Amino acid sequence: MSGMSEEVVNICVVGATGYAGVEVARLVLDHPTLRLVMVTDRKIAGTPLAEAYPSLRGITDLAFSLPEPDAIAKTADVAFLAVPHTASLSLTPQLLARGVTVIDLSADYRLKDAATYEAWYGVPHTSPSLLAEAVYGLPELNRDKLTDLARTRAAGRPVLVAAPGCYPTATALAAAPALAAGLTTTSLVISDCISGVSGAGRAPSERTHYCHAAESVEAYGVGRHRHTPEIEQTLTGVAGRPMDVVFTPHLAPLTRGLLSTVYLEAASGVTTAQVQQAYGDAYAHEALVTTLPSGQMPRTGSVAGSARAQVGVALDQRRRGMIVASCAIDNLGKGAASQAVQCANVVLGLPETCGLDFTAPVL
Amino acid sequence: MSGMSEEVVNICVVGATGYAGVEVARLVLDHPTLRLVMVTDRKIAGTPLAEAYPSLRGITDLAFSLPEPDAIAKTADVAFLAVPHTASLSLTPQLLARGVTVIDLSADYRLKDAATYEAWYGVPHTSPSLLAEAVYGLPELNRDKLTDLARTRAAGRPVLVAAPGCYPTATALAAAPALAAGLTTTSLVISDCISGVSGAGRAPSERTHYCHAAESVEAYGVGRHRHTPEIEQTLTGVAGRPMDVVFTPHLAPLTRGLLSTVYLEAASGVTTAQVQQAYGDAYAHEALVTTLPSGQMPRTGSVAGSARAQVGVALDQRRRGMIVASCAIDNLGKGAASQAVQCANVVLGLPETCGLDFTAPVL
Amino acid sequence: MSGMSEEVVNICVVGATGYAGVEVARLVLDHPTLRLVMVTDRKIAGTPLAEAYPSLRGITDLAFSLPEPDAIAKTADVAFLAVPHTASLSLTPQLLARGVTVIDLSADYRLKDAATYEAWYGVPHTSPSLLAEAVYGLPELNRDKLTDLARTRAAGRPVLVAAPGCYPTATALAAAPALAAGLTTTSLVISDCISGVSGAGRAPSERTHYCHAAESVEAYGVGRHRHTPEIEQTLTGVAGRPMDVVFTPHLAPLTRGLLSTVYLEAASGVTTAQVQQAYGDAYAHEALVTTLPSGQMPRTGSVAGSARAQVGVALDQRRRGMIVASCAIDNLGKGAASQAVQCANVVLGLPETCGLDFTAPVL
Amino acid sequence: MSGMSEEVVNICVVGATGYAGVEVARLVLDHPTLRLVMVTDRKIAGTPLAEAYPSLRGITDLAFSLPEPDAIAKTADVAFLAVPHTASLSLTPQLLARGVTVIDLSADYRLKDAATYEAWYGVPHTSPSLLAEAVYGLPELNRDKLTDLARTRAAGRPVLVAAPGCYPTATALAAAPALAAGLTTTSLVISDCISGVSGAGRAPSERTHYCHAAESVEAYGVGRHRHTPEIEQTLTGVAGRPMDVVFTPHLAPLTRGLLSTVYLEAASGVTTAQVQQAYGDAYAHEALVTTLPSGQMPRTGSVAGSARAQVGVALDQRRRGMIVASCAIDNLGKGAASQAVQCANVVLGLPETCGLDFTAPVL
Repeated sequence: MSGMSEEVVNICVVGATGYAGVEVARLVLDHPTLRLVMVTDRKIAGTPLAEAYPSLRGITDLAFSLPEPDAIAKTADVAFLAVPHTASLSLTPQLLARGVTVIDLSADYRLKDAATYEAWYGVPHTSPSLLAEAVYGLPELNRDKLTDLARTRAAGRPVLVAAPGCYPTATALAAAPALAAGLTTTSLVISDCISGVSGAGRAPSERTHYCHAAESVEAYGVGRHRHTPEIEQTLTGVAGRPMDVVFTPHLAPLTRGLLSTVYLEAASGVTTAQVQQAYGDAYAHEALVTTLPSGQMPRTGSVAGSARAQVGVALDQRRRGMIVASCAIDNLGKGAASQAVQCANVVLGLPETCGLDFTAPVL
Repeated sequence: MSGMSEEVVNICVVGATGYAGVEVARLVLDHPTLRLVMVTDRKIAGTPLAEAYPSLRGITDLAFSLPEPDAIAKTADVAFLAVPHTASLSLTPQLLARGVTVIDLSADYRLKDAATYEAWYGVPHTSPSLLAEAVYGLPELNRDKLTDLARTRAAGRPVLVAAPGCYPTATALAAAPALAAGLTTTSLVISDCISGVSGAGRAPSERTHYCHAAESVEAYGVGRHRHTPEIEQTLTGVAGRPMDVVFTPHLAPLTRGLLSTVYLEAASGVTTAQVQQAYGDAYAHEALVTTLPSGQMPRTGSVAGSARAQVGVALDQRRRGMIVASCAIDNLGKGAASQAVQCANVVLGLPETCGLDFTAPVL
Repeated sequence: MSGMSEEVVNICVVGATGYAGVEVARLVLDHPTLRLVMVTDRKIAGTPLAEAYPSLRGITDLAFSLPEPDAIAKTADVAFLAVPHTASLSLTPQLLARGVTVIDLSADYRLKDAATYEAWYGVPHTSPSLLAEAVYGLPELNRDKLTDLARTRAAGRPVLVAAPGCYPTATALAAAPALAAGLTTTSLVISDCISGVSGAGRAPSERTHYCHAAESVEAYGVGRHRHTPEIEQTLTGVAGRPMDVVFTPHLAPLTRGLLSTVYLEAASGVTTAQVQQAYGDAYAHEALVTTLPSGQMPRTGSVAGSARAQVGVALDQRRRGMIVASCAIDNLGKGAASQAVQCANVVLGLPETCGLDFTAPVL
Repeated sequence: MSGMSEEVVNICVVGATGYAGVEVARLVLDHPTLRLVMVTDRKIAGTPLAEAYPSLRGITDLAFSLPEPDAIAKTADVAFLAVPHTASLSLTPQLLARGVTVIDLSADYRLKDAATYEAWYGVPHTSPSLLAEAVYGLPELNRDKLTDLARTRAAGRPVLVAAPGCYPTATALAAAPALAAGLTTTSLVISDCISGVSGAGRAPSERTHYCHAAESVEAYGVGRHRHTPEIEQTLTGVAGRPMDVVFTPHLAPLTRGLLSTVYLEAASGVTTAQVQQAYGDAYAHEALVTTLPSGQMPRTGSVAGSARAQVGVALDQRRRGMIVASCAIDNLGKGAASQAVQCANVVLGLPETCGLDFTAPVL
C-alpha cells in the first residue's frame, strides 16, 4: 500500500459547481495522493473554479471543462459524479467503457432493484445491468465489497461505487448497531431527520432563500422522499429481514449538518447498558464514526466541515422500551463528498482515511 | 360581554425579565382591555423594563417591582406568573388568598397527580389541593373548563389557570384530531420536536451561546424531559384511554418557533381523505389554529411572533399506515404567553382572541 | 380628524408579493381605518395572498388581481406601489389621473432632479413634471410638506408621496441632528451601512441563497449604490449646503434590520454633551424615533418587525473630534412599509402613528 | 530549513478552552511539525479536551493541565498564550526565563509604549522591558523582524511574539497598501468593522446569547475599543507618519468572520487603476492574502475556517476621491490562531504556511 500511495491518481469532478461537487474538489485539493486535474460544468465551461467559489482564490487555477467522456478518460483515472439523478445513467456507462473508475454521488446506482428506482424516480433505468456490479459505498457497513472492488481495479478493470445519500447514511449509522445486535424485533424504523439547507442544492429557490430558511423549521416530503427506499434497502440488509421505514425529513437553518434520530422498539428485556455496549462496539474500530458516552447526544456542529459521524443512543424505558439513537453528520461530508473520497481510498488501495483525518473547525 | 370589555383589567407580570414574561408584557401592552400596571423581578427591582429590553423604549416607562403578594394584590386583578417551577408553588396560594386570579405559566399546577409532579420535578408539591381546581389552559381542548372558571370568577372568586408547556401544546394540537377521531387504535405516540433557543430561557449558558447554538441541531433530554408526563396526561384525556408517549426534543438555531412532528399508527383502513377531514374539522372553528391543505406542512416561521398555530398532516400509506402530523407554534406565543393571554381572555369573559388577532411579521 | 378616522379608506397594494408589499398589506390588515381591498401581482393573479404567504392563512381570503389602473381606481382610494423602479413611472400618472392617491415605495419620484435619476437609474424619466409635486415621505424631516398634501387631498385632489429608501432613511435619521444643529462644518458624510437580506428582495438569487448569506458579511456596490444621490439630496436639504456622501452598504445574515453608522467631523469645540443634547432634542417629540441615552448604541433587533427607529451617538474626541451616530431600523418597516403607512396617515389626516404604535416582538 | 522541519516541536497551548486557544490546538493537531503535548486550563484541569469540545472526540485524548511554568517548560518548546490580557504579563516572563518561546495572543506585548498600554487597559505594565524585544506578529508587514527572531532562537535564546488582535489585523491589511504606496496624504483612517460573535469569547453573556445575537447587528465600544491604539501603532508604522484612527466595531450574527472596511481620502489625481495596482502588488507574493479583482469585495464566508485573508478595494471618485478597502478574515484564524501559528512557523524556521495551506470548507 505504501507503494501505491506514492503514485498520484488523477481526479475529475463532474458537476463541480454543485455543493457536493465542490466539496469533493476541496477534499481532493488537500489529498496527499489524489490530484485534481479536471472539474466540469456544462453551463460555465471556461470559468475558473475560483470565480464560482471565491474561497478557492489563490488555491487553484483550474477552470471548468465540459463533461465530455473522451476528455475525462484522457485526463483522469477516477471520476466523481456529483450530478443530478439520470445524468449519471448516461455518463457512467461511457466512463466505465473508457476505463475510468466512477464514484457516483447521484442516486442512479444505489437501489439494487431497477423497478424500485423507476417507481421512485419516475424514469426508466437505462443501465440496469450495472446495478449488480455497483457497490453501495457506505464503508462502515459495506467495507468488504469495497475491498473486492479494489482487487478488481488492481486487476485493471474500472469499477463503480454508488455513494449513499445523506439521509440514508445518517439513518443507517444510527440504526445499524441496534439491528445488527438484535436489540429490536419489530420491522419498523421511524427516521426523523433534520437537514441543513445545503442539502437542497445550490440552485436558488424560494425554499433556499435566506428569508425563508432562516429562523424557521419545517417538515417536507412527508411519506414520499426518494431516500425512503434507499434507507429500507440498507436497513433490510443490516437486519437480515425486511424493514419498513417511516421517514420524515425536516429543514433547519444551518448550511451544513444533518441529524437523524431513529426510533426502534426495544426487544423485551433489553437494558440501557446493552444498548450502549452494542453501539460502542459497533464503531469501536471505526476511525470516522464515534459513539458518544452514555447520556450524550451528538450535535451536527461537532462534525460540520469534517468527514466524521457521531452517534448517541438512549433507551426510553418507560411503559414500553424504545431505542432512540441519533447520528450527526455533515450532509456534504460523510453524507456526500468525504464518504465518496473514503470509498475512493478503499477502491484505490489507499488508507481509508487518507486525506480525511483533518480536524475541522471546532466551532 | 361587550360591557365587560369596556372595563380595564389591571395586570401584573411576575418574572417579566424572562422571555415568556416579557412576551406576556408585550401582549398586555397592546391589549385593548388588559392594562399592564406591574412587572416584577427579584434581582433588578427599580430598573425600567425598557432598560432590560431596549425595544420597549418609548413604549412603556414601567419599572420592575419586587414580587410581593400584598403589593401585587393591591395593584393587580390578574397575575401572570412567568417563573421557574417551584416559585409558583409558594406564590400562587398567596395570590389566590388575596383575591388575585393567577395565570400560571410554570409547570407547578399542570399535572393533576402530585406524585407524578414530584417524580419528574424532584420536589414535593406543597399545595396539592389546588391541583383539582386549577384548569389546564389549552382552550382548543379545554374550553369548557375555562368557561366554568369565568363563571367562578364572575361570582367573585379568584381562579387558577395552569398554562401548558410549549412542547405539550404543539404535540397536543398535532395529535388530538387523530386521537379524538379514533384514527389510531394503538396507545403509542412518538413526538419528535424541534425548538428554538428561546425555549432554553434568558439565562446565558454554554448551550445558548450563539457560537454553540448557531448552525447546529441536536437532540437533548432524550427519554427524560419533564414535559413527557404532561403530554401523556393531555393525550390520555383526549383519547379517553391511557397513552404512552416517546418524546424527543431537539434544539435548532432559531429564536422563536417550535415544531412537533408526531407519529401515530393508523387504524386499519384509514384513508388520507379521512385523516385530512378529521384535522380540517377539528380546527375549522378555531380562530388561532389553522389546518393546512392536504400536502402542506407548516413552517415555524409562519407563526413566529403570532398567537397562532398551524397544523399539517399526512398519511404514510406504505407497508403500514402511519399518520404523521406536524404542528408549528411560536414557543413564546401559543407555547407560552399568547396562550396564557388567551386563557385570561376566556376567564375574564372577553372575546377569546382579544388582543391576539394581530398579524405578525410575515417574514 | 376624529371624524375622518371613522371613515374607512380603501387600500390597494400594488406588488404585494414582494417583501415590502406584503409588509404594507400586513400593516393595513391590522390598521383601524385603512381597509385592504386589493392586492396585485402580474404573475400570480387569482392566487390567494395566503398561499404566497402561509402566515396569512386564517387572516385574509384576498387573492391577487392584475394591476389594472381602472380596476384599482374603482376599488381603492389609495394605492401603495411596492414595485421595481420604472414600473411606477408608468403606473403612477395613470392612478393620479383616475383620482387615486399614490404612496410610491419605488425610487421613481424620490430624486427631485430628473437628470440625476437618469444618470443613476439608466433610464429616462417619463413624468418629470410630477417630481415637483411629489413629496419625499420622511415625516420626521418633512412633516410640513406631507401636511400640505393632506390639505390638497382634502380639497379633492389625489396626491403623490415618494416613500424613501431604506438606507437613506436610516442615514438621514442618523446624520440629520448633527447637520441641523451645526455640529459639523465639513461637507463630507461617510455612511457605512449593514442591511438584512430582505433588502435584496424576494427573488431567489445566488446572493440571497441561505448558504451564501448565512454566517457571512460583505460590502457590495461600493461607490455606486443608487441610494447615494438620494442620501445626498436629503442631507443637503437638512444641512442647507451641499453635502457629499461616501456610502458603503454591507450585507449581513439577518432577515430584517438595517443599521446606518455615519461619520461626521465635529466642528471645533463640540462636546459630547452638546452632541447628546442635539440628538435627544431632535427626536424628543417623535413617537417612532427614540434617541438612546449616552453611551448606548441601537441594535436592529430592537426595532425588527416594528415601525420604529432608534438612534445612538458618540463623539470620538481623540486627536480630531468625530461624531459617530448609528440608526437602527427595520428595512421593511421604517425603511419601507411602515414609513409608507405613516405618510399615508398624515396625508389622510389620521393620527400619524395610527396602526403603527403596536409593540413588535421584543426578541 | 528542510532539516529543521523534520524535528518535532512540542507545543503547549495555555488557555485552550477559549475559542482562540482551541483553534490553535486544532491547527497544531494537524500540523506536520508541531506536536500538541499540553493544553492548560485553570478551572477544568484533568478534563479531556474532547469533553469540552466534542468535535475532537476520536482525534485527541489530551486532558487539560494547570498552567504551571515549570511543567510547561519541562514539556514544551513553544507556548501559545491564549489568555486574557494581564495573564500574559505574569506568565510570559516566567516562560521566557525557563527557555520557552512564547507566542502571545493576548494584548499584553502588542503596544510598544507601556504608558499607552496602561491608559487603555487600566493596569500597570509589569514587564515593560520585554516590549522592545517582543515582535509584533503580522508577517505580511513585519516579516523581517520575525526572521530576526528565528535567528535569535536558533542561537539558543527563547523569543517572544505578540500576535496581533483581530480588528488590527484586518484593518492593517485593508489600509496598508494605500498608505505604503502614498495614495493618501491625510492622516485619518476610518475603520468600520463587523465581527462575528466568537470574537466576544466563550464565556456566556447577555450579548452572546443566541436570542440576542441572532438576527441583529449593532455597533459597540464606539470611540473606546482597546484595539484603537494598536491599529494606530501599526498604521503609523506603515505610513511612516502619525496616523489617527476612528474605529467602530459592529457585532453581527456569525460565529467566525471579521470584515474591516476602511476609508482613506485619496491623494489628488489618484486613479482606480493605481489603487487596484497598489493593492494587487502588495499581496502578489503573499500565500495567505489575496487581492480580489477590480470590482469585487470579499465575503467573510470565503475565509471562515481558513488561515487566509482576502482584500478588495474601490475608489469612490465622486466629488472627492475616497479609497474604500475591505479585508475579510476569520477572526479566529488570521485574526488570532492561524496568524499565531504563521508567526511560530517563521520563528521556528519552518515554511511560513506550514500546516496552514489547507482548504477550508467553501461554504
